[in-house]
Amino acid sequence: MKLGWIGTGVMGRWMAEHLLKAGNKLHVNNIPKERTDVLVQQGAVFSSVPEMARSCDVVFTMVGFPQELEALYFGKEGLFANMRPGSLLVDHTTSSPSLAVRISEEAAKKSLTAIDAPVSGGDEGARLGKLAIMCGGDKAGFERAKPLMEKYGANVRLMGKAGVGQHTKLTNQIVLTGNLVGMVEGFLYAHKAGLDLHQMVELVATGAAGSNYFKAIAPKIMKNDYSPGFYVQHLVKDLGLALDECKRMGIILPGLSLANQFYLSMMAHGEEKLGCHALIKVLERLNNTKFNP
Amino acid sequence: MKLGWIGTGVMGRWMAEHLLKAGNKLHVNNIPKERTDVLVQQGAVFSSVPEMARSCDVVFTMVGFPQELEALYFGKEGLFANMRPGSLLVDHTTSSPSLAVRISEEAAKKSLTAIDAPVSGGDEGARLGKLAIMCGGDKAGFERAKPLMEKYGANVRLMGKAGVGQHTKLTNQIVLTGNLVGMVEGFLYAHKAGLDLHQMVELVATGAAGSNYFKAIAPKIMKNDYSPGFYVQHLVKDLGLALDECKRMGIILPGLSLANQFYLSMMAHGEEKLGCHALIKVLERLNNTKFNP
Repeated sequence: MKLGWIGTGVMGRWMAEHLLKAGNKLHVNNIPKERTDVLVQQGAVFSSVPEMARSCDVVFTMVGFPQELEALYFGKEGLFANMRPGSLLVDHTTSSPSLAVRISEEAAKKSLTAIDAPVSGGDEGARLGKLAIMCGGDKAGFERAKPLMEKYGANVRLMGKAGVGQHTKLTNQIVLTGNLVGMVEGFLYAHKAGLDLHQMVELVATGAAGSNYFKAIAPKIMKNDYSPGFYVQHLVKDLGLALDECKRMGIILPGLSLANQFYLSMMAHGEEKLGCHALIKVLERLNNTKFNP
Repeated sequence: MKLGWIGTGVMGRWMAEHLLKAGNKLHVNNIPKERTDVLVQQGAVFSSVPEMARSCDVVFTMVGFPQELEALYFGKEGLFANMRPGSLLVDHTTSSPSLAVRISEEAAKKSLTAIDAPVSGGDEGARLGKLAIMCGGDKAGFERAKPLMEKYGANVRLMGKAGVGQHTKLTNQIVLTGNLVGMVEGFLYAHKAGLDLHQMVELVATGAAGSNYFKAIAPKIMKNDYSPGFYVQHLVKDLGLALDECKRMGIILPGLSLANQFYLSMMAHGEEKLGCHALIKVLERLNNTKFNP
Protein backbone atom coordinates (compact mmCIF):
# COMPACT_ATOMS: atom_id res chain seq x y z
CA MET A 1 0.00 0.00 0.00
CA LYS A 2 1.37 3.40 -0.98
CA LEU A 3 0.60 6.39 1.21
CA GLY A 4 0.81 10.10 0.42
CA TRP A 5 1.16 12.96 2.90
CA ILE A 6 0.58 16.61 2.00
CA GLY A 7 1.52 19.19 4.62
CA THR A 8 4.59 18.51 6.75
CA GLY A 9 4.46 21.47 9.14
CA VAL A 10 4.74 21.54 12.95
CA MET A 11 2.28 18.66 13.36
CA GLY A 12 2.09 16.93 9.95
CA ARG A 13 5.85 16.29 9.98
CA TRP A 14 5.54 14.06 13.10
CA MET A 15 2.37 12.34 11.98
CA ALA A 16 3.94 11.41 8.64
CA GLU A 17 7.07 10.23 10.43
CA HIS A 18 5.02 7.82 12.55
CA LEU A 19 3.59 6.28 9.34
CA LEU A 20 7.07 6.03 7.85
CA LYS A 21 8.53 4.42 10.98
CA ALA A 22 5.71 1.88 10.93
CA GLY A 23 7.19 0.63 7.63
CA ASN A 24 4.89 2.28 5.08
CA LYS A 25 5.96 3.53 1.66
CA LEU A 26 5.37 7.27 1.86
CA HIS A 27 5.20 10.06 -0.72
CA VAL A 28 5.40 13.55 0.73
CA ASN A 29 4.63 17.08 -0.44
CA ASN A 30 4.78 20.49 1.19
CA ILE A 31 5.13 24.16 0.33
CA PRO A 32 7.94 25.01 0.94
CA LYS A 33 9.50 21.76 -0.25
CA GLU A 34 12.42 22.00 2.26
CA ARG A 35 10.13 21.04 5.13
CA THR A 36 9.87 17.53 3.66
CA ASP A 37 13.69 17.04 3.79
CA VAL A 38 13.67 15.48 7.25
CA LEU A 39 11.22 12.83 6.01
CA VAL A 40 13.01 12.25 2.68
CA GLN A 41 16.22 11.59 4.65
CA GLN A 42 14.29 8.84 6.44
CA GLY A 43 13.14 7.20 3.22
CA ALA A 44 10.07 9.16 2.07
CA VAL A 45 9.85 10.19 -1.60
CA PHE A 46 9.04 13.77 -2.54
CA SER A 47 6.46 13.94 -5.28
CA SER A 48 4.14 16.47 -6.89
CA VAL A 49 0.48 16.43 -5.90
CA PRO A 50 -0.74 14.91 -9.22
CA GLU A 51 1.99 12.22 -9.15
CA MET A 52 1.09 11.36 -5.55
CA ALA A 53 -2.63 11.30 -6.37
CA ARG A 54 -2.09 8.94 -9.29
CA SER A 55 0.15 6.50 -7.39
CA CYS A 56 -1.15 6.37 -3.80
CA ASP A 57 -3.93 4.30 -2.20
CA VAL A 58 -4.41 6.70 0.69
CA VAL A 59 -3.59 10.42 0.71
CA PHE A 60 -3.50 12.38 3.97
CA THR A 61 -3.77 16.18 4.04
CA MET A 62 -2.75 18.49 6.88
CA VAL A 63 -2.55 22.05 5.61
CA GLY A 64 -3.13 25.45 7.17
CA PHE A 65 -6.32 26.95 5.79
CA PRO A 66 -9.57 25.86 4.09
CA GLN A 67 -8.70 27.84 0.94
CA GLU A 68 -5.52 25.80 0.47
CA LEU A 69 -7.47 22.65 1.13
CA GLU A 70 -10.09 23.53 -1.46
CA ALA A 71 -7.45 24.18 -4.12
CA LEU A 72 -5.67 20.95 -3.20
CA TYR A 73 -8.81 18.84 -3.59
CA PHE A 74 -10.69 20.64 -6.39
CA GLY A 75 -7.91 22.32 -8.42
CA LYS A 76 -6.84 21.20 -11.92
CA GLU A 77 -3.60 19.78 -10.55
CA GLY A 78 -5.37 18.55 -7.44
CA LEU A 79 -6.45 15.30 -5.83
CA PHE A 80 -9.89 14.79 -7.35
CA ALA A 81 -8.56 15.33 -10.89
CA ASN A 82 -5.93 12.63 -10.44
CA MET A 83 -6.81 9.98 -7.86
CA ARG A 84 -7.63 6.43 -8.87
CA PRO A 85 -11.12 5.06 -8.06
CA GLY A 86 -11.20 3.17 -4.76
CA SER A 87 -8.62 5.40 -3.12
CA LEU A 88 -9.04 6.98 0.28
CA LEU A 89 -8.63 10.63 1.34
CA VAL A 90 -8.06 11.58 4.97
CA ASP A 91 -8.05 15.29 5.84
CA HIS A 92 -6.53 16.28 9.19
CA THR A 93 -6.84 20.04 8.61
CA THR A 94 -9.21 21.89 10.91
CA SER A 95 -11.52 23.18 8.22
CA SER A 96 -15.11 24.07 7.48
CA PRO A 97 -17.77 21.38 8.09
CA SER A 98 -19.47 22.39 4.84
CA LEU A 99 -16.23 21.99 2.88
CA ALA A 100 -15.86 18.54 4.44
CA VAL A 101 -19.35 17.67 3.19
CA ARG A 102 -18.52 18.99 -0.32
CA ILE A 103 -15.30 16.95 -0.36
CA SER A 104 -17.16 13.84 0.75
CA GLU A 105 -19.83 14.28 -1.94
CA GLU A 106 -17.31 14.91 -4.68
CA ALA A 107 -15.31 11.87 -3.54
CA ALA A 108 -18.40 9.67 -3.79
CA LYS A 109 -19.02 10.90 -7.36
CA LYS A 110 -15.51 9.78 -8.31
CA SER A 111 -15.72 6.42 -6.44
CA LEU A 112 -13.35 7.70 -3.79
CA THR A 113 -13.88 7.81 -0.03
CA ALA A 114 -13.12 10.93 2.06
CA ILE A 115 -12.84 11.24 5.83
CA ASP A 116 -12.64 14.55 7.73
CA ALA A 117 -10.35 13.90 10.67
CA PRO A 118 -9.22 17.02 12.57
CA VAL A 119 -6.92 16.39 15.50
CA SER A 120 -6.27 17.77 18.96
CA GLY A 121 -3.08 17.58 20.97
CA GLY A 122 -0.69 20.06 19.37
CA ASP A 123 2.85 19.50 18.18
CA GLU A 124 3.64 17.58 21.37
CA GLY A 125 0.72 15.17 20.86
CA ALA A 126 1.79 14.67 17.23
CA ARG A 127 5.41 13.98 18.17
CA LEU A 128 4.42 11.45 20.83
CA GLY A 129 1.76 9.84 18.61
CA LYS A 130 -0.95 10.61 21.14
CA LEU A 131 -3.40 12.77 19.21
CA ALA A 132 -7.16 12.74 19.65
CA ILE A 133 -8.65 12.33 16.15
CA MET A 134 -12.32 13.16 15.60
CA CYS A 135 -13.63 11.74 12.34
CA GLY A 136 -16.60 12.30 10.08
CA GLY A 137 -17.54 10.08 7.14
CA ASP A 138 -18.82 6.62 6.40
CA LYS A 139 -17.96 3.70 8.64
CA ALA A 140 -16.23 1.57 5.99
CA GLY A 141 -13.88 4.42 5.04
CA PHE A 142 -13.19 5.14 8.69
CA GLU A 143 -12.32 1.49 9.35
CA ARG A 144 -9.82 1.53 6.48
CA ALA A 145 -8.17 4.69 7.77
CA LYS A 146 -8.21 3.87 11.47
CA PRO A 147 -5.23 1.46 11.69
CA LEU A 148 -3.10 4.05 9.91
CA MET A 149 -4.28 6.95 12.11
CA GLU A 150 -3.58 4.86 15.19
CA LYS A 151 0.12 5.16 14.40
CA TYR A 152 -0.13 8.76 15.68
CA GLY A 153 -3.52 8.86 17.42
CA ALA A 154 -4.32 7.60 20.92
CA ASN A 155 -8.05 8.33 20.70
CA VAL A 156 -9.37 7.81 17.14
CA ARG A 157 -13.16 8.07 16.90
CA LEU A 158 -15.86 8.15 14.27
CA MET A 159 -18.12 10.96 15.49
CA GLY A 160 -20.70 10.82 12.70
CA LYS A 161 -21.21 11.53 9.01
CA ALA A 162 -19.09 13.82 6.82
CA GLY A 163 -18.43 17.19 8.48
CA VAL A 164 -19.15 15.94 12.01
CA GLY A 165 -15.45 15.53 12.73
CA GLN A 166 -15.03 19.23 11.94
CA HIS A 167 -18.01 20.22 14.09
CA THR A 168 -16.50 18.27 17.00
CA LYS A 169 -13.19 20.06 16.60
CA LEU A 170 -14.91 23.45 16.48
CA THR A 171 -16.80 22.58 19.68
CA ASN A 172 -13.46 21.73 21.24
CA GLN A 173 -12.03 25.10 20.18
CA ILE A 174 -15.04 26.99 21.59
CA VAL A 175 -14.61 25.33 25.01
CA LEU A 176 -10.84 25.87 24.89
CA THR A 177 -11.25 29.56 24.04
CA GLY A 178 -13.40 30.13 27.12
CA ASN A 179 -10.69 28.48 29.20
CA LEU A 180 -8.08 30.73 27.61
CA VAL A 181 -10.00 33.93 28.35
CA GLY A 182 -10.62 32.94 31.98
CA MET A 183 -7.02 31.89 32.39
CA VAL A 184 -5.35 35.07 31.14
CA GLU A 185 -7.86 37.31 32.93
CA GLY A 186 -7.17 35.37 36.14
CA PHE A 187 -3.43 35.79 35.64
CA LEU A 188 -3.68 39.53 35.12
CA TYR A 189 -5.96 39.91 38.15
CA ALA A 190 -3.64 37.82 40.35
CA HIS A 191 -0.59 39.74 39.19
CA LYS A 192 -2.18 43.13 39.88
CA ALA A 193 -3.41 41.90 43.28
CA GLY A 194 0.18 41.00 44.14
CA LEU A 195 -0.34 37.27 44.57
CA ASP A 196 2.48 34.75 44.53
CA LEU A 197 1.63 33.28 41.12
CA HIS A 198 3.28 29.94 41.81
CA GLN A 199 1.13 29.40 44.89
CA MET A 200 -1.96 30.61 43.02
CA VAL A 201 -1.31 28.20 40.15
CA GLU A 202 -0.82 25.22 42.46
CA LEU A 203 -4.12 25.98 44.14
CA VAL A 204 -6.23 26.85 41.08
CA ALA A 205 -4.90 23.96 38.97
CA THR A 206 -6.13 21.33 41.39
CA GLY A 207 -9.55 22.86 42.13
CA ALA A 208 -12.82 23.33 40.27
CA ALA A 209 -11.27 26.00 38.01
CA GLY A 210 -8.37 23.83 36.89
CA SER A 211 -8.11 22.72 33.27
CA ASN A 212 -5.75 20.73 31.13
CA TYR A 213 -4.67 23.87 29.28
CA PHE A 214 -4.16 25.81 32.52
CA LYS A 215 -1.82 23.12 33.82
CA ALA A 216 0.09 22.93 30.55
CA ILE A 217 0.39 26.65 29.90
CA ALA A 218 0.64 28.31 33.34
CA PRO A 219 4.39 27.58 33.59
CA LYS A 220 4.96 29.33 30.24
CA ILE A 221 2.86 32.35 31.21
CA MET A 222 4.83 32.75 34.43
CA LYS A 223 8.01 32.97 32.36
CA ASN A 224 6.49 35.43 29.87
CA ASP A 225 7.14 32.68 27.31
CA TYR A 226 4.74 33.16 24.39
CA SER A 227 6.31 30.65 22.01
CA PRO A 228 3.68 28.66 20.15
CA GLY A 229 2.47 25.18 20.83
CA PHE A 230 -0.64 26.34 18.99
CA TYR A 231 -0.47 29.44 16.74
CA VAL A 232 -2.75 32.45 17.15
CA GLN A 233 -3.32 32.48 13.38
CA HIS A 234 -4.71 28.95 13.47
CA LEU A 235 -7.05 29.69 16.36
CA VAL A 236 -8.24 32.80 14.47
CA LYS A 237 -9.05 30.52 11.53
CA ASP A 238 -10.88 28.08 13.82
CA LEU A 239 -12.91 30.77 15.59
CA GLY A 240 -13.83 32.27 12.23
CA LEU A 241 -15.02 28.85 11.05
CA ALA A 242 -17.05 28.38 14.23
CA LEU A 243 -18.64 31.82 13.88
CA ASP A 244 -19.42 31.12 10.19
CA GLU A 245 -21.19 27.92 11.28
CA CYS A 246 -23.05 29.84 14.00
CA LYS A 247 -24.30 32.28 11.40
CA ARG A 248 -25.39 29.43 9.17
CA MET A 249 -27.17 27.70 12.08
CA GLY A 250 -28.69 30.99 13.27
CA ILE A 251 -27.11 31.12 16.72
CA ILE A 252 -24.97 33.68 18.56
CA LEU A 253 -22.19 32.90 21.04
CA PRO A 254 -21.20 36.18 22.71
CA GLY A 255 -18.20 34.82 24.65
CA LEU A 256 -16.76 33.34 21.48
CA SER A 257 -17.37 36.59 19.58
CA LEU A 258 -15.53 38.62 22.21
CA ALA A 259 -12.58 36.21 22.19
CA ASN A 260 -12.54 36.33 18.40
CA GLN A 261 -12.25 40.13 18.49
CA PHE A 262 -9.32 39.86 20.91
CA TYR A 263 -7.53 37.37 18.68
CA LEU A 264 -8.15 39.58 15.65
CA SER A 265 -6.53 42.39 17.63
CA MET A 266 -3.48 40.16 18.02
CA MET A 267 -3.39 39.72 14.23
CA ALA A 268 -3.52 43.51 13.88
CA HIS A 269 -0.45 43.67 16.12
CA GLY A 270 1.45 41.12 14.04
CA GLU A 271 1.22 38.45 16.73
CA GLU A 272 -0.14 35.68 14.52
CA LYS A 273 2.85 33.40 15.11
CA LEU A 274 2.70 33.55 18.92
CA GLY A 275 1.05 30.89 21.07
CA CYS A 276 -2.63 31.33 21.90
CA HIS A 277 -1.89 32.07 25.56
CA ALA A 278 -0.26 35.32 24.39
CA LEU A 279 -3.87 36.59 24.58
CA ILE A 280 -2.69 38.21 27.81
CA LYS A 281 -0.98 40.82 25.58
CA VAL A 282 -4.41 42.10 24.54
CA LEU A 283 -5.21 42.65 28.22
CA GLU A 284 -1.88 44.40 28.72
CA ARG A 285 -2.67 46.85 25.94
CA LEU A 286 -6.29 47.43 26.99
CA ASN A 287 -5.09 48.13 30.51
CA ASN A 288 -1.95 50.06 29.60
CA THR A 289 -0.06 47.81 31.98
CA LYS A 290 2.58 45.09 31.94
CA PHE A 291 2.22 41.51 33.06
CA ASN A 292 5.76 40.91 34.33
CA PRO A 293 5.61 38.17 36.95
CA MET B 1 -10.46 24.67 73.71
CA LYS B 2 -13.93 25.93 72.85
CA LEU B 3 -14.83 26.54 69.21
CA GLY B 4 -17.66 28.59 67.71
CA TRP B 5 -19.17 28.23 64.24
CA ILE B 6 -21.44 30.84 62.62
CA GLY B 7 -23.14 29.84 59.38
CA THR B 8 -24.29 26.25 58.98
CA GLY B 9 -25.57 26.30 55.40
CA VAL B 10 -24.83 23.91 52.53
CA MET B 11 -21.09 23.94 53.21
CA GLY B 12 -20.68 25.28 56.78
CA ARG B 13 -22.85 22.51 58.16
CA TRP B 14 -20.37 19.83 57.00
CA MET B 15 -17.28 21.78 57.99
CA ALA B 16 -18.64 22.28 61.53
CA GLU B 17 -19.56 18.62 61.70
CA HIS B 18 -15.98 17.62 60.92
CA LEU B 19 -14.78 19.72 63.88
CA LEU B 20 -17.42 18.18 66.13
CA LYS B 21 -16.56 14.64 65.07
CA ALA B 22 -12.91 15.34 65.81
CA GLY B 23 -13.95 15.73 69.46
CA ASN B 24 -14.09 19.52 69.83
CA LYS B 25 -16.56 21.42 72.01
CA LEU B 26 -18.58 23.41 69.53
CA HIS B 27 -20.99 26.36 69.79
CA VAL B 28 -23.08 26.98 66.71
CA ASN B 29 -25.21 29.81 65.34
CA ASN B 30 -27.17 30.33 62.15
CA ILE B 31 -30.10 32.30 60.76
CA PRO B 32 -32.50 30.51 60.58
CA LYS B 33 -31.71 28.65 63.80
CA GLU B 34 -33.25 25.35 62.52
CA ARG B 35 -30.27 24.75 60.29
CA THR B 36 -28.14 24.14 63.38
CA ASP B 37 -30.43 21.32 64.60
CA VAL B 38 -28.49 18.56 62.88
CA LEU B 39 -25.34 19.69 64.70
CA VAL B 40 -27.05 20.20 68.07
CA GLN B 41 -28.33 16.62 67.83
CA GLN B 42 -24.70 15.55 67.53
CA GLY B 43 -23.65 17.46 70.64
CA ALA B 44 -23.08 21.07 69.54
CA VAL B 45 -24.54 23.87 71.66
CA PHE B 46 -26.63 26.60 70.08
CA SER B 47 -25.61 30.01 71.37
CA SER B 48 -26.14 33.67 70.50
CA VAL B 49 -23.28 35.47 68.75
CA PRO B 50 -22.28 37.54 71.85
CA GLU B 51 -22.34 34.45 74.10
CA MET B 52 -20.25 32.54 71.62
CA ALA B 53 -17.83 35.44 71.25
CA ARG B 54 -17.35 35.70 75.03
CA SER B 55 -16.80 31.99 75.60
CA CYS B 56 -14.88 30.65 72.57
CA ASP B 57 -11.17 30.59 71.81
CA VAL B 58 -11.69 30.32 68.05
CA VAL B 59 -14.73 31.49 66.08
CA PHE B 60 -15.28 30.41 62.46
CA THR B 61 -17.61 32.30 60.13
CA MET B 62 -19.10 31.01 56.87
CA VAL B 63 -21.96 33.28 55.82
CA GLY B 64 -23.43 34.32 52.48
CA PHE B 65 -22.56 37.92 51.76
CA PRO B 66 -19.98 40.57 52.80
CA GLN B 67 -22.71 42.80 54.32
CA GLU B 68 -23.71 40.03 56.74
CA LEU B 69 -20.09 39.46 57.55
CA GLU B 70 -19.51 43.14 58.29
CA ALA B 71 -22.48 43.25 60.67
CA LEU B 72 -21.32 40.05 62.34
CA TYR B 73 -17.83 41.36 63.01
CA PHE B 74 -18.43 45.10 63.59
CA GLY B 75 -22.04 45.22 64.95
CA LYS B 76 -22.91 46.07 68.55
CA GLU B 77 -23.87 42.45 69.23
CA GLY B 78 -21.02 41.24 67.07
CA LEU B 79 -17.69 39.49 67.44
CA PHE B 80 -15.33 42.43 67.97
CA ALA B 81 -17.53 43.86 70.73
CA ASN B 82 -17.44 40.63 72.68
CA MET B 83 -14.41 38.44 72.02
CA ARG B 84 -11.71 37.96 74.62
CA PRO B 85 -8.15 39.15 73.85
CA GLY B 86 -6.00 36.39 72.44
CA SER B 87 -8.87 34.74 70.56
CA LEU B 88 -8.76 33.74 66.92
CA LEU B 89 -11.21 34.53 64.10
CA VAL B 90 -11.30 32.46 60.91
CA ASP B 91 -13.55 33.66 58.08
CA HIS B 92 -14.41 31.15 55.34
CA THR B 93 -16.87 33.44 53.52
CA THR B 94 -15.84 34.50 50.01
CA SER B 95 -15.79 38.19 50.69
CA SER B 96 -14.04 41.41 49.76
CA PRO B 97 -10.24 41.56 50.14
CA SER B 98 -10.56 45.09 51.57
CA LEU B 99 -13.08 43.93 54.20
CA ALA B 100 -10.63 41.15 55.11
CA VAL B 101 -7.94 43.80 55.62
CA ARG B 102 -10.29 45.93 57.78
CA ILE B 103 -11.20 42.89 59.87
CA SER B 104 -7.53 42.00 60.32
CA GLU B 105 -6.64 45.56 61.39
CA GLU B 106 -9.54 45.82 63.83
CA ALA B 107 -8.61 42.41 65.27
CA ALA B 108 -5.05 43.59 65.89
CA LYS B 109 -6.35 46.67 67.76
CA LYS B 110 -8.29 44.37 70.09
CA SER B 111 -5.43 41.87 70.58
CA LEU B 112 -7.26 39.32 68.44
CA THR B 113 -6.02 37.51 65.33
CA ALA B 114 -8.08 37.21 62.15
CA ILE B 115 -7.51 34.96 59.13
CA ASP B 116 -9.38 35.23 55.82
CA ALA B 117 -9.78 31.69 54.56
CA PRO B 118 -12.16 31.26 51.60
CA VAL B 119 -12.59 27.73 50.34
CA SER B 120 -13.05 25.88 47.08
CA GLY B 121 -14.64 22.49 46.53
CA GLY B 122 -18.38 23.01 46.95
CA ASP B 123 -20.78 21.11 49.18
CA GLU B 124 -19.24 17.82 48.08
CA GLY B 125 -15.74 18.92 49.07
CA ALA B 126 -17.09 20.13 52.43
CA ARG B 127 -18.90 16.88 53.10
CA LEU B 128 -15.84 14.78 52.26
CA GLY B 129 -13.49 17.10 54.17
CA LYS B 130 -11.45 17.76 51.05
CA LEU B 131 -11.68 21.53 50.60
CA ALA B 132 -8.93 23.73 49.26
CA ILE B 133 -8.52 26.59 51.74
CA MET B 134 -6.64 29.73 50.69
CA CYS B 135 -5.62 31.85 53.65
CA GLY B 136 -4.51 35.42 54.24
CA GLY B 137 -3.14 36.75 57.52
CA ASP B 138 -0.10 36.42 59.76
CA LYS B 139 1.82 33.18 59.99
CA ALA B 140 1.35 32.61 63.73
CA GLY B 141 -2.43 32.94 63.45
CA PHE B 142 -2.46 30.66 60.43
CA GLU B 143 -0.45 28.01 62.29
CA ARG B 144 -2.96 28.07 65.15
CA ALA B 145 -5.92 27.68 62.78
CA LYS B 146 -4.37 25.15 60.40
CA PRO B 147 -4.79 21.93 62.47
CA LEU B 148 -8.48 22.77 62.89
CA MET B 149 -9.01 23.60 59.20
CA GLU B 150 -7.29 20.36 58.25
CA LYS B 151 -10.29 18.52 59.70
CA TYR B 152 -12.19 19.59 56.56
CA GLY B 153 -9.44 20.85 54.23
CA ALA B 154 -7.15 18.74 52.05
CA ASN B 155 -5.08 21.67 50.77
CA VAL B 156 -4.73 24.40 53.43
CA ARG B 157 -2.32 27.16 52.41
CA LEU B 158 -1.18 30.53 53.67
CA MET B 159 -1.16 32.61 50.47
CA GLY B 160 0.02 35.91 51.97
CA LYS B 161 -1.05 38.72 54.25
CA ALA B 162 -4.62 39.69 55.17
CA GLY B 163 -6.91 39.82 52.12
CA VAL B 164 -4.66 37.66 49.95
CA GLY B 165 -6.78 34.58 50.65
CA GLN B 166 -9.74 36.49 49.21
CA HIS B 167 -7.74 37.66 46.18
CA THR B 168 -6.75 34.05 45.49
CA LYS B 169 -10.37 32.92 45.65
CA LEU B 170 -11.46 35.70 43.29
CA THR B 171 -8.70 34.68 40.86
CA ASN B 172 -10.07 31.14 41.04
CA GLN B 173 -13.58 32.39 40.26
CA ILE B 174 -12.36 34.44 37.28
CA VAL B 175 -10.66 31.38 35.74
CA LEU B 176 -13.69 29.21 36.51
CA THR B 177 -16.07 31.70 34.90
CA GLY B 178 -14.13 31.60 31.64
CA ASN B 179 -14.39 27.81 31.73
CA LEU B 180 -18.13 28.05 32.31
CA VAL B 181 -18.70 30.39 29.36
CA GLY B 182 -16.66 28.21 27.00
CA MET B 183 -18.39 25.09 28.25
CA VAL B 184 -21.99 26.20 27.78
CA GLU B 185 -21.24 27.86 24.43
CA GLY B 186 -19.59 24.63 23.30
CA PHE B 187 -22.61 22.62 24.41
CA LEU B 188 -25.06 24.84 22.55
CA TYR B 189 -22.91 24.75 19.41
CA ALA B 190 -22.56 20.97 19.56
CA HIS B 191 -26.28 20.50 20.12
CA LYS B 192 -27.22 22.75 17.19
CA ALA B 193 -24.65 21.00 14.97
CA GLY B 194 -26.34 17.69 15.78
CA LEU B 195 -23.37 16.04 17.51
CA ASP B 196 -23.67 13.02 19.75
CA LEU B 197 -23.02 14.90 23.02
CA HIS B 198 -21.77 11.84 24.88
CA GLN B 199 -19.09 11.22 22.27
CA MET B 200 -18.25 14.93 22.19
CA VAL B 201 -17.85 15.05 25.97
CA GLU B 202 -15.61 11.99 26.07
CA LEU B 203 -13.37 13.55 23.47
CA VAL B 204 -13.27 17.15 24.74
CA ALA B 205 -12.83 16.15 28.40
CA THR B 206 -9.59 14.31 27.75
CA GLY B 207 -8.04 16.88 25.38
CA ALA B 208 -6.56 20.35 25.69
CA ALA B 209 -10.01 21.89 26.27
CA GLY B 210 -10.89 19.59 29.15
CA SER B 211 -11.30 21.02 32.64
CA ASN B 212 -12.20 19.77 36.09
CA TYR B 213 -15.52 21.61 35.95
CA PHE B 214 -16.30 20.29 32.47
CA LYS B 215 -15.80 16.72 33.66
CA ALA B 216 -17.90 17.26 36.77
CA ILE B 217 -20.76 19.19 35.16
CA ALA B 218 -21.12 17.79 31.64
CA PRO B 219 -23.18 14.80 32.85
CA LYS B 220 -25.63 17.20 34.55
CA ILE B 221 -25.90 19.44 31.48
CA MET B 222 -26.69 16.43 29.29
CA LYS B 223 -29.60 15.62 31.57
CA ASN B 224 -30.84 19.25 31.66
CA ASP B 225 -30.15 19.04 35.42
CA TYR B 226 -29.56 22.54 36.75
CA SER B 227 -29.63 21.73 40.45
CA PRO B 228 -26.97 23.63 42.37
CA GLY B 229 -23.64 22.42 43.56
CA PHE B 230 -22.72 26.10 43.47
CA TYR B 231 -25.47 28.76 43.44
CA VAL B 232 -25.77 31.44 40.75
CA GLN B 233 -26.39 34.05 43.47
CA HIS B 234 -23.05 33.28 45.10
CA LEU B 235 -21.14 33.48 41.82
CA VAL B 236 -22.86 36.82 41.15
CA LYS B 237 -21.55 38.02 44.51
CA ASP B 238 -18.04 36.75 43.70
CA LEU B 239 -17.94 38.32 40.22
CA GLY B 240 -19.17 41.60 41.68
CA LEU B 241 -16.39 41.49 44.27
CA ALA B 242 -13.82 40.74 41.57
CA LEU B 243 -15.07 43.62 39.41
CA ASP B 244 -15.02 45.97 42.43
CA GLU B 245 -11.39 45.00 42.99
CA CYS B 246 -10.63 45.52 39.28
CA LYS B 247 -12.07 49.03 39.51
CA ARG B 248 -10.00 49.73 42.61
CA MET B 249 -6.85 48.40 40.91
CA GLY B 250 -7.66 50.24 37.66
CA ILE B 251 -7.94 47.23 35.36
CA ILE B 252 -10.65 45.92 33.04
CA LEU B 253 -11.42 42.27 32.32
CA PRO B 254 -13.86 42.16 29.39
CA GLY B 255 -14.55 38.41 29.50
CA LEU B 256 -15.40 38.63 33.18
CA SER B 257 -17.64 41.65 32.58
CA LEU B 258 -19.58 39.84 29.87
CA ALA B 259 -20.05 36.77 32.07
CA ASN B 260 -21.17 39.02 34.92
CA GLN B 261 -23.85 40.54 32.69
CA PHE B 262 -25.09 37.05 31.79
CA TYR B 263 -25.29 36.01 35.42
CA LEU B 264 -27.13 39.23 36.28
CA SER B 265 -29.60 38.30 33.55
CA MET B 266 -30.15 35.01 35.37
CA MET B 267 -30.91 36.97 38.55
CA ALA B 268 -33.46 39.02 36.57
CA HIS B 269 -35.10 35.75 35.58
CA GLY B 270 -35.27 34.52 39.17
CA GLU B 271 -32.62 31.85 38.60
CA GLU B 272 -30.41 32.76 41.57
CA LYS B 273 -30.83 29.36 43.21
CA LEU B 274 -29.83 27.30 40.18
CA GLY B 275 -26.36 25.88 39.66
CA CYS B 276 -23.85 28.05 37.78
CA HIS B 277 -23.88 25.76 34.73
CA ALA B 278 -27.50 26.89 34.16
CA LEU B 279 -25.76 29.75 32.31
CA ILE B 280 -26.80 27.85 29.20
CA LYS B 281 -30.32 29.22 29.83
CA VAL B 282 -29.05 32.71 28.96
CA LEU B 283 -27.88 31.35 25.62
CA GLU B 284 -31.23 29.67 25.09
CA ARG B 285 -33.05 32.96 25.58
CA LEU B 286 -30.61 35.00 23.49
CA ASN B 287 -31.00 32.48 20.69
CA ASN B 288 -34.70 31.83 21.08
CA THR B 289 -33.90 28.14 21.07
CA LYS B 290 -33.95 25.15 23.37
CA PHE B 291 -31.05 23.05 24.53
CA ASN B 292 -32.77 19.68 24.83
CA PRO B 293 -30.14 16.98 24.40
